[in-house]
This record gives sequence, C-alpha cells and structure tokens, in this order.
Amino acid sequence: MDPLLVQALAPVLRLVTAIELVAVIAAAFSGFAEARKKEMDVVGVFTVAFVTAFGGGTLRDLLLDRRPFFWVDHYEYVIIILVLTILVTPAMRIAHRLVPNWAFVTADAIGLGFFSIAGMALAIQADMPWIIAAMLGVVTGVFGGVLRDVILNEVPMVLRDGKPYALASFLGCGAYSLMLSAGLPQSVALWSAAGFIVVLRMVAWRQNWTLK
Amino acid sequence: MDPLLVQALAPVLRLVTAIELVAVIAAAFSGFAEARKKEMDVVGVFTVAFVTAFGGGTLRDLLLDRRPFFWVDHYEYVIIILVLTILVTPAMRIAHRLVPNWAFVTADAIGLGFFSIAGMALAIQADMPWIIAAMLGVVTGVFGGVLRDVILNEVPMVLRDGKPYALASFLGCGAYSLMLSAGLPQSVALWSAAGFIVVLRMVAWRQNWTLK
Amino acid sequence: MDPLLVQALAPVLRLVTAIELVAVIAAAFSGFAEARKKEMDVVGVFTVAFVTAFGGGTLRDLLLDRRPFFWVDHYEYVIIILVLTILVTPAMRIAHRLVPNWAFVTADAIGLGFFSIAGMALAIQADMPWIIAAMLGVVTGVFGGVLRDVILNEVPMVLRDGKPYALASFLGCGAYSLMLSAGLPQSVALWSAAGFIVVLRMVAWRQNWTLK
Repeated sequence: MDPLLVQALAPVLRLVTAIELVAVIAAAFSGFAEARKKEMDVVGVFTVAFVTAFGGGTLRDLLLDRRPFFWVDHYEYVIIILVLTILVTPAMRIAHRLVPNWAFVTADAIGLGFFSIAGMALAIQADMPWIIAAMLGVVTGVFGGVLRDVILNEVPMVLRDGKPYALASFLGCGAYSLMLSAGLPQSVALWSAAGFIVVLRMVAWRQNWTLK
Repeated sequence: MDPLLVQALAPVLRLVTAIELVAVIAAAFSGFAEARKKEMDVVGVFTVAFVTAFGGGTLRDLLLDRRPFFWVDHYEYVIIILVLTILVTPAMRIAHRLVPNWAFVTADAIGLGFFSIAGMALAIQADMPWIIAAMLGVVTGVFGGVLRDVILNEVPMVLRDGKPYALASFLGCGAYSLMLSAGLPQSVALWSAAGFIVVLRMVAWRQNWTLK
Repeated sequence: MDPLLVQALAPVLRLVTAIELVAVIAAAFSGFAEARKKEMDVVGVFTVAFVTAFGGGTLRDLLLDRRPFFWVDHYEYVIIILVLTILVTPAMRIAHRLVPNWAFVTADAIGLGFFSIAGMALAIQADMPWIIAAMLGVVTGVFGGVLRDVILNEVPMVLRDGKPYALASFLGCGAYSLMLSAGLPQSVALWSAAGFIVVLRMVAWRQNWTLK
C-alpha cells in the first residue's frame, strides 16, 4: 500500500484495534458460557471461546484477502483467551448460577456491535460498495456466534429466534455509513455506531421485540 | 493478467456470468423452501438463501484465490436475494402447500448444473488439471446445499440419500471436458453440459435411481 | 520466493510431503470408518474421507495463504482417496466387525501426529511466532476430524471427550519447537515429534487418561 495512505489510515486502524480488543474479550466470555452449558472439556472451552472470538474477523479477513489475520498480527489476543480459559473454567464450575443471564447477553451484544463496525470500517477501506461493506460488517458481527452454534450442534440462534440481532448490526452499519457521509470524524462514527448496535440489541432483548 | 488474455477470455466470462445468475436465483429458491420448513425468521430466510446461493461459488473463489468474490463483483446478486426474501417470505407463508415439491427439486437441479459447470470452467482457466477442475466443479455445485444443511443442523442430503446428485455433477463436468477436447465451442460445451446435469438429476429423481 | 531459499528448503518440503502422505491415508481410513457407521452412500463415503484427509491441511493453507493447495499440487492424493473409496467401501460392508476399534484409533492418531507437525513446520517457515505456529499445527491436526464430525451432525469428539487429543498435538508441537532450538536436524525433529504425538495419543487412549 501507498505509505502516505498507510500513515493517513494509521489512527483509524489503531481505533479499529481498540474496538476489536473489546469485542474479542466479550465474545470469548459468551463462548465460555455456552461451552460450559454443553459440559465441554478444557480444550473444548478454549476452542469454542476462540472460534466465537475470532470466527467473524477471520471470515472477514478471508473475504477481504487480508493477511496476516488480525489474531496472527495481534497474537497477544490468543494468549489472552488461553489465560482466560485457564482462569475462568474452574471459576465457572463454582459460579454457575451466580452469573446472571443478562451478563452474557451484554457480553454478546458488545461483541456484536464492535465486531460489526470494525468489519465494516475495514471493508470500506478496501473500497467495497457500502451495501457489501455493511454485509461484511454483519458477517463479522454474527459469524463467530454462528460458528459457535454449529460446533455445538445447534441451529444458530441468530437465524431463528426472531430477535433483531443481525438486523441491529445492519442498522448500525447503515448509521456508520451515514455518519461518514455527513462528514463526522472516524472516531465519533466508529464508537457511536458500535454503541448504537449494543444499545439497540440490549433494548430489543429487554423489550422482547420480535420480527417473525 | 495479460490484457490480451483477458480480452480472449471475455466472452467465456460473460457466459459464465449468465450461467451463474440462473444458478444463483434457482439456489436461492431452494434455500427459501428449506428455511421456511424450519420456521426461520426473516434474517434466517435471507441467510439460508444467501448461503445456498453463494456458498459453492465462494468456496470455489477461495480455493482458486479469485478476488473479489463473484458476489462482490456482481453485488446486484446480493440485492436480488434481498428483494426476493422480502417478496417471497410472506408469499410462502400463504402458498405453503401450493408450491409442488418438484418445483423445488427443479430449482435445486438447475443450481447444481449451472454452478458445477461455471466452477469447472473457471478452474480450467486457472490451469488446473482436469480431475481437480472437475472436483472444483462438483464442490461449487453441491457446497451451497451442504452449507445450507449444516446450518439447518442436518446431515447433508447429498451425502446420504444415495441419489446420483454429486455424481450427476461429476459426469457433467467430465462431459464438458470431453466436449472441449473434441474442439466444440465454449458456449455449446457450457450450456449443454449444464443442461445435461439438470436433466440427469431430474430423471434420476423421477425414476428414483439409487446408488447405495 | 528466493530460489536459493527454495533450494535450501527443498529437503524439508520433501520430508513434509512424505509425512503428509502418511497422514492423508491414515485420516482417510478414519473417515471411511465413520462414514460407514452413519450408513452413507458412496459419494458420502468419499466426501467424508476427503474432508477428514484434507480439511486440516486446506485450512492451514488458507490461513497461511499458500497456493496451490497441497492436494492440488499433489493431486495423486485425490486419486488415491478415490481409488481407496471404490476398493474399501464394499470391503467394509463385509468386514464390518472384523476391523478392530484400535485400528481406527491408530489411523486417527497417525493422522493427528503427522498433520500437526507438517502444519507447524510450514507455519514456522512462514515466519510465524511459535505460539501461532503451534496453534496452526493443532488446527491442521484436528480440523479434519472436526469437519468430519460437523458434516456427520455430531458435536466434535475432540471438544468434549476430555481425552488429551488436541493437547497431545500441542505438546508435540512444543517438543518440535524445542528440538529445533536445541539445534537438532529438521528430519529428526519432524519424525520424532510426530511419533511422540502418535504414541502419546495412543497411550492416553489405552490408559483412559481424562482431562476434564
């Protein structure tokens, strides 16, 4: 890539990285919860957390042909998941009933919001038309959870519970695109669009909105 | 790529594009049918149709390292699926029993035939040996349906019903390869091999041929 | 790549190829066994064997962005699986009870060990940090079996039986890395690390070691 362009993009990429870290940790926790429900062993817990955390971003990188993958570039992410697995697995066996359901829904919503916008931002930088970029945002946001459910041998929740999950992601990506067109700075657009998805998802879950 | 080569290949690529469009629409309809059977919501119907329509071609593009993906290059395909989802979902709820089973088998057979040959044609252009090209043709033809079944949490039909499905695709790819060696023009070989697969699959289904 | 480097790497690549061939055949046999249990047709048996044998290596090649895939480069592998399918399928119907369980566990263990080390060796050549290389080794070793189980609609065995399977692979990759640092020749490190995984897995299976 043109070095000048790289320099211009550096702050955006730093932002995307910060957002990704939040999303990785949140997604890993939703993976821990699901894996424990299915009584997996340590390797299973790690794998499910890994897949939930990195599945969406890896598919995005594959589709955009970006190498190295974001978790190869930032392999501290992998170590974080590894350490969390070792710390969290025994804790979960004890805590089980103490961790309320909303904590996991929140972790999952944060993962959804931040991955979606990180995915869309990178797709826009790769000069994709906005509808494809939004689609890649949604894929990045939901694919980790889909992969988690496929591995756990369930029909992915996102495809059948009728809750606005992928839709929340899509609307947030649209909002991001509008904010950029309106000339708002990247950082504002990134954080507020990601936050918008998290809030929309949480409200939809609390209010029990259904699409069906 | 060499511009002269690109020019020489242009008519073939145009043909492959036309064939792909037929296959995409047919596959999307088979996705709609399956998704409704499982009582998915709108997002689920769209996703299953999307995956069925683009799964095979995306895997082929990944394996051949072709970018952008054919559905990024022709993102009108994505919009077609989106519009069809919005139009077809409510219609299906009403029609349910009115759409005969053979209509879906036909849509699926058309998807199989046309994706297979489009996949093989692109693999041959990428200088693959014919056995690998035929394999890629079969993968392009059947993978959308396999992915659809995996997401819907079923053992892929193609792997266990003993009907000549992947085999029909393989034979059609072989026929295409023979026709090219015999010096037939691309357009004749493409359409007649794709048609051959569709007919073979339909006849096998009607006659209830079994391999087992 | 630099031709001098290619020349220097040639013996390593030849070794990796030999190791891969062992792993491919062993994995295919474990695929045959599973597919027959589920009463698949010929196409299903071939596909499951193919996926088990090539799934891990293909994911590795995708992640490392290596093209052509190892089974495109060595398409004799594909033909071997095809011929084995045709020979083995009818034999299995007869033999069924004659083939003892340990034979399949052994085939699977050999696949695990040799794929893991082949995956790690290629990742190290691609200049990955060792923790990522070890992860890629594990992925290469176990992913074929995971894909096999997902296609057969089961929760992957590796994630829930609590046996040291992925862990054996990980320890072997660590041992390989240590042997290289200790200055041992590639060939010794490759074969002994792969052998170590096979033995560790077999002993763990015999002794019924559990991690849970």
